Amino acid sequence: MMQNNFTKALRGEDHESIPVWFMRQAGRYLPGYSRIRNGLSFKEMMSSPAVIEEITYEPVKEIGVDAAIIFSDILLPLEAMGFDVEFTDNAGPKVKNNYSRSNFKGIHEFEEISYPYPTEKAISDLKEKYNFPVIGFSGAPLTLLSYLLMDFPDRDMMVTKSFMIDHEDEFKSIMGLLSEMVSAYCKIQIRAGVDAIQIFDSWSGYLSPYEFERYEDPYLSEITSEIGGSVPLIYFSTQSSSFIGEMKTPFDFLSLDWRVRLSKIIQTLPDRFGLQGNLDPSIINTSRYLEEAKSIVEDAAGLERYIFNTGHGILPQTNPKRLREIVDYVHGL
Amino acid sequence: MMQNNFTKALRGEDHESIPVWFMRQAGRYLPGYSRIRNGLSFKEMMSSPAVIEEITYEPVKEIGVDAAIIFSDILLPLEAMGFDVEFTDNAGPKVKNNYSRSNFKGIHEFEEISYPYPTEKAISDLKEKYNFPVIGFSGAPLTLLSYLLMDFPDRDMMVTKSFMIDHEDEFKSIMGLLSEMVSAYCKIQIRAGVDAIQIFDSWSGYLSPYEFERYEDPYLSEITSEIGGSVPLIYFSTQSSSFIGEMKTPFDFLSLDWRVRLSKIIQTLPDRFGLQGNLDPSIINTSRYLEEAKSIVEDAAGLERYIFNTGHGILPQTNPKRLREIVDYVHGL
Repeated sequence: MMQNNFTKALRGEDHESIPVWFMRQAGRYLPGYSRIRNGLSFKEMMSSPAVIEEITYEPVKEIGVDAAIIFSDILLPLEAMGFDVEFTDNAGPKVKNNYSRSNFKGIHEFEEISYPYPTEKAISDLKEKYNFPVIGFSGAPLTLLSYLLMDFPDRDMMVTKSFMIDHEDEFKSIMGLLSEMVSAYCKIQIRAGVDAIQIFDSWSGYLSPYEFERYEDPYLSEITSEIGGSVPLIYFSTQSSSFIGEMKTPFDFLSLDWRVRLSKIIQTLPDRFGLQGNLDPSIINTSRYLEEAKSIVEDAAGLERYIFNTGHGILPQTNPKRLREIVDYVHGL
Repeated sequence: MMQNNFTKALRGEDHESIPVWFMRQAGRYLPGYSRIRNGLSFKEMMSSPAVIEEITYEPVKEIGVDAAIIFSDILLPLEAMGFDVEFTDNAGPKVKNNYSRSNFKGIHEFEEISYPYPTEKAISDLKEKYNFPVIGFSGAPLTLLSYLLMDFPDRDMMVTKSFMIDHEDEFKSIMGLLSEMVSAYCKIQIRAGVDAIQIFDSWSGYLSPYEFERYEDPYLSEITSEIGGSVPLIYFSTQSSSFIGEMKTPFDFLSLDWRVRLSKIIQTLPDRFGLQGNLDPSIINTSRYLEEAKSIVEDAAGLERYIFNTGHGILPQTNPKRLREIVDYVHGL
């Protein structure tokens, strides 16, 4: 198995330079994207291993990142639970038939939808063709649930919070099923050969420490106990660094946003966590982008395990040339 | 001057029970609001001291809070700088003629707009009539600037960040003028008799520690050096507890959101800060509202100066009866 700075950093082994990748690094802002996509809808792309493969690998060629993250969407596997997810180009995806007890099918129909298998095929083809690190991913259960409950972003998470607090038995049973689905979906990706799994928990930063402890952490632990030990596991959240050190789930890495100095938060975190992230994606669109990258790397100098990344997905208007400059710059430091 | 638990807690004096107020406590969710408003537009209300006074005092009667916050909007004083602010009932306010060098007039025309003076009159009438604590407020300079730069919420603050980083000289001069305006506006409220001033910095939680230090903290300090020492000053922000302890501006209180345990963050903050807030406004719409209030008060037991409040404005669908229950409950603890 091929090792590079990314896979070595993940495992805490000596490596030559700080590895870099970016959340949402594959997509429309890349010049090659439209050519590869060639008019296909998102779901058509998701049915074609060749398209997934090419789009996933494009940022490696264009930007020079140290890992490719499989091109997909966290809501896609919800179709295996009986939900109809709509992907449009100009707005976020939404679940068309929202959650109700009756249309919730668990994962016993996982085999009936076709998307996981083109993804699996794309992963194994990528590994065979390029022998390059590939990251698999899934949404976290509570983040997925918040999409199931609403057909628009539940910004304050009020609907989700009402549900989890006032319908706790039902909440528990659904979160159990979502955790099973996430584990099963990650296992498919691991079997296909990914080098790491990142769990995206975009909405956990709206929780209080108490809510995180009670309503999310136990389900994350269910997932890591199912898939942990196979590949390193990265946990992504944002706006949560004030409580994330209390997390009991044994993730290997935490991906943090830009609201914190890494040198400072590391003092409050258990030793088991490597860190990732910290670059504000907005800064890439200002003249400060290299200076900011330098400042983050200097601040992270005392960290044993650090992977350079943005603190959130890169913005659509980002110039990929600047991302390439950042990669080269961080590699050279 | 009348003293109650609120004014005593503010000054660190002994008091009998934990004082309570809620951000956005005056407004449409209160049954009396429509009656008092009586079909007036927001700007018409802002021109009538009697209406401002009655709406401001309504939550004291209906909910039993320990302080009234003057009914107004942070964008209103921007009209004194040449901006035309539009207030609609169903969407947030917006600045119609966005920022440009040419339409930015500083505060030399502050006397030409009428809004500060009905507000001033309402404050002094309220103090005279009820001898009850009244909180004055203003937006923070960077939060105000972010509204000036956009006619829709600049969610990632990307426009604001580009401006502050890539046009730093212009940024500095505008922020200087905004700080002057904020100081002048606060002085009007202090002269009229408010017992405290709260500075709302709703957007600072999108900054990095570096950005906060360079682009916001110095302007906050300009304001406190102008108005500090007169009445206690409270600083409101959200999503910022991971860096707010680094703030140099000598505010008396920090108003924090629900993403942190007060007992924990107090260990990392300089002694000079009292704390306010911590209740997630979404929780008021779940069955957990009293239990959550209890848990916060217990967690805050070791704090010398604490004011119970939400961590953000209460949501429009909130039942005022529950707020009254929370007030009574916290008072009784």
